[in-house]
Amino acid sequence: MSKYAIGIDFGTGSGRVVVIDVKTGEIAGSHVTEYKHGVISSTLAYSDKELKRDTALQHPQDYLDVLEQSIPQSLTNAKVNSADVIGIGLDFTACTILPVNESLEPLCFDPKWQVEPNAWVKLWKHHAAQEQANRINTLAKERKEEWIQRYGGIISSEWMLPKVLEIMEDSPDVYDETTYFIEAADWLTSLMTGTLKRNSCAAGFKGVWNEKDGYVSKEFLKALHPSLENIYDSKLAGEVVSIGEKAGNLVAQFAEKIGLQAGTPVAMGMIDAHAGVPGAGVTSPHKMVLVMGTSTCHMLLSDKERLVEGISGVVKDGIIPNYYAYEAGQAAVGDIFAWFTKESVPAYVNENAQKQGKSIHQYLEELAQNLEPGSNGLLALDWHNGCRTPLVNSDLSGVITGLNLSTKPEEVYRALIEATAFGTKMIIDTFQQQDINIEELVACGGLPQRNKLFMQIYADVTNMPIKVSNSDITPAIGSAMYGAVVAGSKNGGYDTISEAAKQMVPSGGTKYYPNEENVKQYRVLYKEYKKLVEYFGKGKNDVMKLLKNF
Amino acid sequence: MSKYAIGIDFGTGSGRVVVIDVKTGEIAGSHVTEYKHGVISSTLAYSDKELKRDTALQHPQDYLDVLEQSIPQSLTNAKVNSADVIGIGLDFTACTILPVNESLEPLCFDPKWQVEPNAWVKLWKHHAAQEQANRINTLAKERKEEWIQRYGGIISSEWMLPKVLEIMEDSPDVYDETTYFIEAADWLTSLMTGTLKRNSCAAGFKGVWNEKDGYVSKEFLKALHPSLENIYDSKLAGEVVSIGEKAGNLVAQFAEKIGLQAGTPVAMGMIDAHAGVPGAGVTSPHKMVLVMGTSTCHMLLSDKERLVEGISGVVKDGIIPNYYAYEAGQAAVGDIFAWFTKESVPAYVNENAQKQGKSIHQYLEELAQNLEPGSNGLLALDWHNGCRTPLVNSDLSGVITGLNLSTKPEEVYRALIEATAFGTKMIIDTFQQQDINIEELVACGGLPQRNKLFMQIYADVTNMPIKVSNSDITPAIGSAMYGAVVAGSKNGGYDTISEAAKQMVPSGGTKYYPNEENVKQYRVLYKEYKKLVEYFGKGKNDVMKLLKNF
Repeated sequence: MSKYAIGIDFGTGSGRVVVIDVKTGEIAGSHVTEYKHGVISSTLAYSDKELKRDTALQHPQDYLDVLEQSIPQSLTNAKVNSADVIGIGLDFTACTILPVNESLEPLCFDPKWQVEPNAWVKLWKHHAAQEQANRINTLAKERKEEWIQRYGGIISSEWMLPKVLEIMEDSPDVYDETTYFIEAADWLTSLMTGTLKRNSCAAGFKGVWNEKDGYVSKEFLKALHPSLENIYDSKLAGEVVSIGEKAGNLVAQFAEKIGLQAGTPVAMGMIDAHAGVPGAGVTSPHKMVLVMGTSTCHMLLSDKERLVEGISGVVKDGIIPNYYAYEAGQAAVGDIFAWFTKESVPAYVNENAQKQGKSIHQYLEELAQNLEPGSNGLLALDWHNGCRTPLVNSDLSGVITGLNLSTKPEEVYRALIEATAFGTKMIIDTFQQQDINIEELVACGGLPQRNKLFMQIYADVTNMPIKVSNSDITPAIGSAMYGAVVAGSKNGGYDTISEAAKQMVPSGGTKYYPNEENVKQYRVLYKEYKKLVEYFGKGKNDVMKLLKNF
Repeated sequence: MSKYAIGIDFGTGSGRVVVIDVKTGEIAGSHVTEYKHGVISSTLAYSDKELKRDTALQHPQDYLDVLEQSIPQSLTNAKVNSADVIGIGLDFTACTILPVNESLEPLCFDPKWQVEPNAWVKLWKHHAAQEQANRINTLAKERKEEWIQRYGGIISSEWMLPKVLEIMEDSPDVYDETTYFIEAADWLTSLMTGTLKRNSCAAGFKGVWNEKDGYVSKEFLKALHPSLENIYDSKLAGEVVSIGEKAGNLVAQFAEKIGLQAGTPVAMGMIDAHAGVPGAGVTSPHKMVLVMGTSTCHMLLSDKERLVEGISGVVKDGIIPNYYAYEAGQAAVGDIFAWFTKESVPAYVNENAQKQGKSIHQYLEELAQNLEPGSNGLLALDWHNGCRTPLVNSDLSGVITGLNLSTKPEEVYRALIEATAFGTKMIIDTFQQQDINIEELVACGGLPQRNKLFMQIYADVTNMPIKVSNSDITPAIGSAMYGAVVAGSKNGGYDTISEAAKQMVPSGGTKYYPNEENVKQYRVLYKEYKKLVEYFGKGKNDVMKLLKNF
């Protein structure tokens, strides 16, 4: 009899459930439920009041709908009986939080609070707490707080603490009424299992928690705001549990709603991108996972804990048990090309692409493929949205040098790809300088699958093989893998995530190898890239900051 | 009875004759003759042989046609009798040269030589002598020749000496058969007057002649090529005569052909752009003339002789008698915007412009007009075709810094205008550092008349008023003015060019004044521009050169 694990991936606009055969890795069935309320950023359904700028809310019922609709539906599609489901795992966007009462019921379900924006889910991309984030960063810097070094010296407005502070300052009554502020991932696993637990992945990467030191100190919290002093004993209380551990077993009441058997083991939830790491087959050190989309997120496992310059976070057990999980990032990658094709590609390129039945990207990629590295003298800096790792400086901006009267759009296109590859190479170097070795790259996301030139240039610039995952749903797979792990081998699952990976990760996927000639050329160009980084990025010429604030 | 002066302006594709009322400045008549043979760059009419790369030849008959057709025609148009024409002046593109025999007949008129490309007129933009120019520059540098400092340390492949050397090396028989190599301007005035003379403007700016030291030394010439040692006593012989002097009087035979009276005084010819200086009303120091087109040529008079960094030339009596005439330049101006609109302006801008019935330039200008200086954090270097003055470095290239995901085409457009204005400001500074003062700018050419924003930004960046000449034919007017000067006051003309200017320069023309607020902002931005110049242009980072030759 085949056994199955369920993986549930909650994205920004929908949730996906997959049912995977634990032994063969076959995806027996899957189902997607779109969020009925989507992203709420202008007005709530219960009030005409305009939401403030940078607001991004969601409706928690949408998440429950995913469970209630897509789990039964995907089992039906898979022709799998709920008795053969041995475990469940889930992942969620983060930091996506909501205020709940003692019974873990969302405040916004209460008619009393439903007109109040701060009572709703604040989606990861809710950016209205920037002012609060700034204050936290300034205070941490002033107080020379050690913990902020784990986050490259800066935390984002997207994270737990700024969002909670925003609620407290904007809506003290909502704040007072709240029993817990909780990550949506943890809310769901807690509901499923009847016990409040917080996952180490979101706590570590978005909640300034650390396995040795715990959360930030009461002194810091008090200095930030007197009412916050004891927040980790109250509204943010709850045991932090490592990824790979069991959240609990499915409680009967909830099991019925979602068409599963009571007692089914539920894995701790985790962040969606991070679940993609085991989903792409990476469960041990030396392989860097690049999740490439509008920006790139770099994830890496290591048995060493090091202070790496400008990383987004380092969390013990944050992705794979027993390893330090590192996250780094480039602030814009796909976004640069979206901007370029929108604002800088001439009409004749559009026309030629159309004539050949190609997208602008395909067309430019083909032309750029025939060019040499550093074609027509161009060299760019990929800081169009600032630099995350290693410089952590949002005042930086993009540069193109080498323009001349014969410069063609496909040459600029290639130079921009090269620049983002140099940016990744610089992140790799930053890790390697801390003795954290990287030998191979694994790329996930739509961009690596679509653009071969992109991948070849990354292989050539980094002088490393790069494997492109051929799955679009690596996070759901990773979550299902953890479902199989919390079931354990006794129940037909696995005892470790690396054993699960051997059977459950889809095989195949294109691999790109460095071209020796190009590697040599890019070695020279990368030196020049670093010179410009040194000049514009390290205080020798602050023109970017000056002009940004001009 | 009104008296008239004739000005003849020989351009790249046609020649224009104007008949000007000497007392009122009214243009009584004018006529243009297109060159029948245009620019010859692929094959000669007499041979199927492909011309070598960068060749640009012309047919001297085309120039004679201008005189023979446009002079009578313009007199007819003006209803002016040839007896009332008191003087003639002409200007020509330079260095445009031809080999002639003892009777000043072009070699290419001889059926024996007409199949030989080197027997034809080499137009100013004939660039096939680059290799020869390189050798001259290298030798001058090795020998530490002082004269090359007057030309910013480098002479162009367009000039007399490289072109003559090219003919000698490519076609020794043509070289041997040639009695004189001569500028087209001097060829025509010599034909008209029956005496071979060479004008100080072309000799100084394109022929490495200097009023104190004469031509380059025989030692240098010998080192360059043994056969060249005595060339200035033979094939380049001929008195160099100052601008403003009379070439002679029109000889009967020629007068008849062109419908003028024998004995009419003929002024020394000059370079077309340089004739535009008096034509725009500038006959004294402290006003810089900007001839703005694909590139910008900066011309300035002074009573001081100084070594100014990277100028294109300094010639005593080169434009106006008794003054040192300085020429400086920016290698690309209009060309940058032609490139930008062709290769970097997205389709939606084209569509919007079309909808509004505007050219892309008009449309972008209007959008850019509403932006602040340094809009959206952009700063550019205008080196898309290298830097002429002051750096004289063709390995330099264009830069844009400050790009971000919201950067719009009109912002880049404005940043590029600002960059070219900073380039001009840097040239002004270079003169002022040598104690050559500049107080006002005068702009000629199509670009200044079309683009108000361009002019306002130049006024704001330089903090100087800038007057835009409202005439498209300033060279022809300047030539006619010299025609009136060689006639002299006794014959109804003028004794000095500044007296001629008072009556003959068209009044009107828009004047732009600096905006105080913008001046302050541009002071800050210009400092940043200079920092980038220092970094990329003065050896601190040679990435542009490295990449150009990658």
